[in-house]
Amino acid sequence: MDSRTSRRLRTAAAAVAVALTASTSVAMLAAPALAATPGDVAEHGGATRNDGDMTDALRESVVDGPAKNVILLIGDGMGDSEITVARNYAEGAGGRFAGIDALPLTGQYTTYSVNEQGQPNYASESASTASAWSTGTKTVNGRLSVDFQNKPQSTLLEIAKANGLKTGNVSTAEIQDATPGAEIAHISARGCYGPEQTTEKCSSEALENGGLGSISEQLLNVRPDVTLGGGAASFSQTAAAGAWKGETLFAQAEDRGYTLVDDAAGLDAVTGADADQPLLGLFSEGNFPVRWNGPEATDLTAGGDLPEAVSCTENPERLASGLSLASLTSKAIDLLDGDEGFFLQVEGASIDKQDHAANACGQIGETVDLDEAVQVAMDFARTQGDTLVVVTADHAHTSQIVGSAIPGLNTHLLTADGQPMIVAYGTSPEGGSQQHTGAQVRIAGYGPGAANVVGLTDQTDLFFTAANGLALEQNLAALSAEATVSVPSEVRPGDTFIVAADGFAADWQLTGGVADAADLGQRDALRGSARFEATAPDAEGTYEITVRGTQTGTTKTTSVTVSEAAAPAPTTAPTTAPTPEPSQSAGAGAGAGTGAGQGGNGSPLATTGAALPIGAAVLAAGLLAVGAYLRSRRRRHTEFV
Amino acid sequence: MDSRTSRRLRTAAAAVAVALTASTSVAMLAAPALAATPGDVAEHGGATRNDGDMTDALRESVVDGPAKNVILLIGDGMGDSEITVARNYAEGAGGRFAGIDALPLTGQYTTYSVNEQGQPNYASESASTASAWSTGTKTVNGRLSVDFQNKPQSTLLEIAKANGLKTGNVSTAEIQDATPGAEIAHISARGCYGPEQTTEKCSSEALENGGLGSISEQLLNVRPDVTLGGGAASFSQTAAAGAWKGETLFAQAEDRGYTLVDDAAGLDAVTGADADQPLLGLFSEGNFPVRWNGPEATDLTAGGDLPEAVSCTENPERLASGLSLASLTSKAIDLLDGDEGFFLQVEGASIDKQDHAANACGQIGETVDLDEAVQVAMDFARTQGDTLVVVTADHAHTSQIVGSAIPGLNTHLLTADGQPMIVAYGTSPEGGSQQHTGAQVRIAGYGPGAANVVGLTDQTDLFFTAANGLALEQNLAALSAEATVSVPSEVRPGDTFIVAADGFAADWQLTGGVADAADLGQRDALRGSARFEATAPDAEGTYEITVRGTQTGTTKTTSVTVSEAAAPAPTTAPTTAPTPEPSQSAGAGAGAGTGAGQGGNGSPLATTGAALPIGAAVLAAGLLAVGAYLRSRRRRHTEFV
Repeated sequence: MDSRTSRRLRTAAAAVAVALTASTSVAMLAAPALAATPGDVAEHGGATRNDGDMTDALRESVVDGPAKNVILLIGDGMGDSEITVARNYAEGAGGRFAGIDALPLTGQYTTYSVNEQGQPNYASESASTASAWSTGTKTVNGRLSVDFQNKPQSTLLEIAKANGLKTGNVSTAEIQDATPGAEIAHISARGCYGPEQTTEKCSSEALENGGLGSISEQLLNVRPDVTLGGGAASFSQTAAAGAWKGETLFAQAEDRGYTLVDDAAGLDAVTGADADQPLLGLFSEGNFPVRWNGPEATDLTAGGDLPEAVSCTENPERLASGLSLASLTSKAIDLLDGDEGFFLQVEGASIDKQDHAANACGQIGETVDLDEAVQVAMDFARTQGDTLVVVTADHAHTSQIVGSAIPGLNTHLLTADGQPMIVAYGTSPEGGSQQHTGAQVRIAGYGPGAANVVGLTDQTDLFFTAANGLALEQNLAALSAEATVSVPSEVRPGDTFIVAADGFAADWQLTGGVADAADLGQRDALRGSARFEATAPDAEGTYEITVRGTQTGTTKTTSVTVSEAAAPAPTTAPTTAPTPEPSQSAGAGAGAGTGAGQGGNGSPLATTGAALPIGAAVLAAGLLAVGAYLRSRRRRHTEFV
Repeated sequence: MDSRTSRRLRTAAAAVAVALTASTSVAMLAAPALAATPGDVAEHGGATRNDGDMTDALRESVVDGPAKNVILLIGDGMGDSEITVARNYAEGAGGRFAGIDALPLTGQYTTYSVNEQGQPNYASESASTASAWSTGTKTVNGRLSVDFQNKPQSTLLEIAKANGLKTGNVSTAEIQDATPGAEIAHISARGCYGPEQTTEKCSSEALENGGLGSISEQLLNVRPDVTLGGGAASFSQTAAAGAWKGETLFAQAEDRGYTLVDDAAGLDAVTGADADQPLLGLFSEGNFPVRWNGPEATDLTAGGDLPEAVSCTENPERLASGLSLASLTSKAIDLLDGDEGFFLQVEGASIDKQDHAANACGQIGETVDLDEAVQVAMDFARTQGDTLVVVTADHAHTSQIVGSAIPGLNTHLLTADGQPMIVAYGTSPEGGSQQHTGAQVRIAGYGPGAANVVGLTDQTDLFFTAANGLALEQNLAALSAEATVSVPSEVRPGDTFIVAADGFAADWQLTGGVADAADLGQRDALRGSARFEATAPDAEGTYEITVRGTQTGTTKTTSVTVSEAAAPAPTTAPTTAPTPEPSQSAGAGAGAGTGAGQGGNGSPLATTGAALPIGAAVLAAGLLAVGAYLRSRRRRHTEFV
């Protein structure tokens, strides 16, 4: 074994020496530190990966749910070929990724999408596939979390949030891109990142036409606790309609309480993120720069020689190490971990993008990058014991390992083993975008409920694996069903008073109105709660007040009596919205007759809850004069109109 | 749901109608009966494959070894892309293969080979890959069950046989082809099917040069209980050396006790197969004709239009249904199933071959064919409860599902869903052989020990999964270590007497000699036993007799004293070689002092076993005049020289 090992090392050294001689660029030789196939794979048993009989180990890895947390890591375009390309290059053919390859339970899942008739489409893309696991519903290529008839489908992130869990969304892509976008938006065209694109390409879904708005605007509505990625450019666009018409989305985000960061130092300084102060970190205008560079693929369609095998190089444009996918994943976990439990999606986006570009080194570096993020997730999960980690891809992709150059694009790399590897791209001519492929892909899991990834599943199964793994109530309307609206039972004409809406657990925005006519405005619901400030009309009478949850359509009413005989109403709004415990928000709502009355100003309001018989609320003609604001707990910007 | 289903069916019907209109060939429309995606995959949850939480189901599928039987089914070239191509076409994207997709435990394994320096080669082929799981040792592309230094490595089939299990080898390819060949031959070039190719291309391994001989000749030596496939052509070749020099391999097989069949009726008539009468069924001169035909792939390298989507058709040249892979698998199981346990390898070979030929319908039909064989194996295993079934591939392959035609070869098929699917081949120009690819591939298991396929493994792990799953002793020399050689203690000059060799459990051939000089000839060892007939020399004295096992090199000696005073020896050989119980052959051998003496002629021979102190065997000068034959139990041809 000793002589063999030394022989192997000599051979590897020789191969490196050949590359040194052959290479035309010294810069290409600054290869990242790579592992190599361990041991001697040419010996009998030397290439095995199992450590003896694995039956007991497998048995131990099968753990009943529910899980407290779910971390879902997506390698965009990371089919089995892409995994193998990256492993061969970075770890050696006999090596293993410390993250990606460490998950004990594995399977394959199908990734087909559907066409506009709801029939299978065998070649899918990232929007339809991300929608599939995000919602449990297959859709048409290019759409985000709407079905083949464009009906919105609730996402894992939304459902987790509605159940009182904290939520995170991390990507190396623009945060509006398909994979992160599918968790936070419902739109018929994945390209409608900001108001401008939406007005142009998704006009019926634009805010000015009564739609849900652009992906970025929908993101601001959903208010995940932690959002980290690229895509800052779209936030410089200006809202075309709605409460923030004429403001940039950055200004809007600030108005709505987001903590905005754009660099590693800023991110490092963030110590908390929650519904009151969600974190929005956008670290590049577009997608993140990739980790590794390498040679352009050589087009041998018309024949010619394969170039010498070379190594990949570090991309000097790469973001600071504090902004690596692993760092972002670590930060997100730190901010999300708590009593509530969390759902976190992490995407290594540019495996796909570099595969499209026939850039083998780019693709490999991004896989290595994702692997490090998986290591972070697995380290956390191993320590916690209550976290389901799933690693998979959205769809397979073009790149293939071949033995001789193909009549298309070829990249010749020198791997960690010191051996040459040809990575071929043959689904598009040079200069075109290499195509996704329709092969089933690997899915791997660890932790409670991970058994559900084993065998043959479909991408839509992953929705249920995660949602059921977290024991989430998936009927969002049910989560908001016990919502309450509370006001003082009596106010004097002209008094300012508070309309307290609580328990709208599955609604991110609430709209207030009077008899379905007068507008109380729209408010972000934090943990299912919002406060409207209203001014009582001058005319005495009993007025019905309605609050509607935007997402579930849950509508609750109460009534207020305007009377000269009423006691004076408090003149300030409560500074703290009631914060239901997760178990409350995930179940019975905030309860009737409690809530706003226990606000921070120490002056309990007399309230009429939704539990009051509706028959007791006599409707009166006339309108409330409305004026409102929202005040959340730890605020810089407390007011918007 | 009803309206959706009917809509879906209408859409499918419409697509078929389009194809009917567009097709130029009526024959192409005689599509095989296909399943289609069940249910409505466009509904929320409609595409899922899991039936609720699978944690308990997975737990139940994890069963401790050992297994009594192992059935290993290989789809040659059946990467995840090939599985998906075939499933989409034949079952619909949302359908599932009743066999391939039914195995509950799944993983991925790496399939790289090594180069002549023992370093990883990322693009492997069927010989090196089949050798990897057959022996647990990686090798160089093109070699069969020898390592990178051309040292023979014992195979699963050989080891199973040496442990007393029955063995089978079934393929739709020539039985000498890489996958079946790796179980029964050790040779440096996979093409050395018969004596002619071996003399030409593997001369140092040819019999005439003291080598192991061609793959076909090695097959006859190994003597699996059941061998079924194609490749009859090589058996018409004539041995260039050895005991059957000048005879065809067919004649040799007959001489050596094989039952030869070449059609379904012949196969159907076979009621037993064992060491005495191994079954050799060769049903085509070369590879089996494929199951389905289809359009030639269209070369769009220089642009052009994709043809209309069409269906595959039945190949009229296909062998009789009694010779389908499923039928052969079923027959093999029937013949192998018994107290001993068995190891059976089954290959669907032409998935690979048709992928090389860019023949999508050919490739798909062979996958469907394999699936039916897997169903047979799973039906047996489910009934038995003691059988490990593994389904996997040797390596990935070229075919890719894409959304638009590639600048290479494209086939446009109309699937069971009534939807079009493009299958693309881009790794070789038109007319060339499409290349294998290096992606990790699916491995799936069911039964005792199947847990060892889950997660990331290497192809060489499969050797240990099977061998350890069957609790096999893998040190073949140890299995033959207790072998014995028995002769009468005294014979009279000129007497004919029997040399009985027993307990050579891991040797298929035994060679007898006197003082390493005189030739007692070579015999097939059945269950570790063989009988040599010898004539005592005229000169009195004590003569050492040596028997050597060809495979393990185990050498055992005894001595016979030639004396005028000896009692008359029996004049006929025993008609029945002793048949050790499996537990004996797998362990202690036949034991000294027993064996030949209990032969069928009722005249026990006085014997001196190998257990006699070697010091007691005084060597004498002079040679035994030898003449020998082998007689096996139920024989047509009992004698050879």
